[in-house]
Amino acid sequence: MSLMLKEIHEQPAVLERILDQPAPALEDLAKRFSASRPAMIVLVARGTSDNAALFGRYLFEITLGIPTMLAAPSVATLYRRLVLPRDTLVIGISQSGESTDINSYVESAKRNGALTIGITNEPSSTLGALADEVLPTEAGKESSVAATKTYTAQMFMLCCLARALGARIAESDLRLAPAAVRAQLNREDSVQALAAEFLDMSHSVVLGRGFNYANSFEFALKLMETSYVVSTAFSGADFAHGPIAMVEEGFPVFVFVPPGPTAGETDKLITRLRQARAETIGIGPSSMLDGLRLSHRIELSGSTLHSTGLPDDILTPIPAIVPAQMFAAHLAAAKGLDPDKPRMLSKVTQTL
Amino acid sequence: MSLMLKEIHEQPAVLERILDQPAPALEDLAKRFSASRPAMIVLVARGTSDNAALFGRYLFEITLGIPTMLAAPSVATLYRRLVLPRDTLVIGISQSGESTDINSYVESAKRNGALTIGITNEPSSTLGALADEVLPTEAGKESSVAATKTYTAQMFMLCCLARALGARIAESDLRLAPAAVRAQLNREDSVQALAAEFLDMSHSVVLGRGFNYANSFEFALKLMETSYVVSTAFSGADFAHGPIAMVEEGFPVFVFVPPGPTAGETDKLITRLRQARAETIGIGPSSMLDGLRLSHRIELSGSTLHSTGLPDDILTPIPAIVPAQMFAAHLAAAKGLDPDKPRMLSKVTQTL
Repeated sequence: MSLMLKEIHEQPAVLERILDQPAPALEDLAKRFSASRPAMIVLVARGTSDNAALFGRYLFEITLGIPTMLAAPSVATLYRRLVLPRDTLVIGISQSGESTDINSYVESAKRNGALTIGITNEPSSTLGALADEVLPTEAGKESSVAATKTYTAQMFMLCCLARALGARIAESDLRLAPAAVRAQLNREDSVQALAAEFLDMSHSVVLGRGFNYANSFEFALKLMETSYVVSTAFSGADFAHGPIAMVEEGFPVFVFVPPGPTAGETDKLITRLRQARAETIGIGPSSMLDGLRLSHRIELSGSTLHSTGLPDDILTPIPAIVPAQMFAAHLAAAKGLDPDKPRMLSKVTQTL
Repeated sequence: MSLMLKEIHEQPAVLERILDQPAPALEDLAKRFSASRPAMIVLVARGTSDNAALFGRYLFEITLGIPTMLAAPSVATLYRRLVLPRDTLVIGISQSGESTDINSYVESAKRNGALTIGITNEPSSTLGALADEVLPTEAGKESSVAATKTYTAQMFMLCCLARALGARIAESDLRLAPAAVRAQLNREDSVQALAAEFLDMSHSVVLGRGFNYANSFEFALKLMETSYVVSTAFSGADFAHGPIAMVEEGFPVFVFVPPGPTAGETDKLITRLRQARAETIGIGPSSMLDGLRLSHRIELSGSTLHSTGLPDDILTPIPAIVPAQMFAAHLAAAKGLDPDKPRMLSKVTQTL
């Protein structure tokens, strides 16, 4: 078994650890934020961590009403023109805590007077030392170059941080996440069988909206780095504004199909894709997939993870990425590739 | 000749029109902003206009020091949770002014008390009526579904707006833009010849950083919608964090190579791509391309467009996108495709 698959299977335990041994910084931050909330949040990350940040962007804007942006790191690192308004919270996310550009951005942010938080799997890293507060993702060492368990752990930690900022996500709802992830792991055989059908796939598109927009980037990244499939991610709306033209008969399009506010637009999109004779693969609970005429289904098991009073899809990305991770790992294996050691990559990437 | 090529050739005249008949709103806005600058800027757009918005993001952050974000439209349209802080400027960008989601976002922004500006080619559109101020792109009717002249016009108008907000971009530097674009049009033959060599290209990656990051998305979009090449855009830094693994011998990678702060990182990236035996195509002035061992060169003619006291690459995306537009139009034609009428697309896209 690849390290990637091994680490995919560790995810329920990681989420349990985050809940059972809550980071001490969370309580400090909750106190601080109950006195004064940030006026703006900036998330800064690269690669998989940047995809978790994209989830965080929707999470913070929708549950807290605080404007949240993904940083353009080069504004700080290459152009050296970073200016942040008062009361900005900057959150650096990095598995290793050793990404040079993320750390350089966090340093600039501190000089600008921002409060900084580091979400990292290595709290004794440079990022850990640099940030005002550290939230460790508690995933244990991640050995596969293709990140999996740290992605779900980062999203989960962002939910915990949203709670500290005042979001009304019930802890009892978060407690259902480990079981929701475990339920997907139990369907590995069917995902493996489906992956084998895509052995000759050279390119694909992955679509997702809202909270699952991040998952579309993360699934595309996994397909690119482990299986060398040229994959590009879009929100369904952006896809309809041009790229849909390249879809011809049999073109593989993966679509995340969660319940909630995005469902209507996703339905319309799948109808158009069917007209273009795309090969559609829906990822969602059977209740959502049943009404759609898809080429293939990746069914999510168990009841949908949700949080009362918030949009139905808010927590769905955490279980929904799991079959996508397994699909990429099994596709790589079926192709005779080593998903743990993609060409040209090392675990820590140094860019500016 | 396709409408797309015809409209590509209209670009110098469009930029001249923007300068010679300045939008009356620009003067009003300059007065208003000299009294009080916005605390935050939100750009909202889809498709090509969203790529222009990405240029605007770097432009405003780097020249003005005002935090600038690209909206996640669904936060307003599907989740209905838009909250904007006081003194937010919201800029909707839409060629037609009839994008349902952009207009819906601008409406929500107005209800939130934001000042709204519409940048549109159709000032009598819904967006034109809705926004507090309208900046017409003066491109004349855009008939090709593949947008070209409105992209450069939108970027140029964003430069004019940055000036109204206080950016020290000299008008005399903007005055050099029409000639800089015209100089690229004069090299159409060499671009057409190069495009013919890529007749069998099924996929590609387009890389750009900083001010040219937007161009990488726009070139990828043009390749997808006109020539049905599966193309994916990245900042060079994000590319190094995973997707680079999929590069094998002969994999086509287009790279924008402007002068300025991004040059060092772009050099390093091209060295890595050469190690991976990618087919590299550099787009930049010969002074930048000369030192690099590229597979192909798309040379930009004439002196580099710049603005004293600002990063050297600030205005480079406007001429640099022109050969990319011509490449896509000629590649489509060589493939026997009609770039004016891509499959599945119409000129106005309605999504939420």
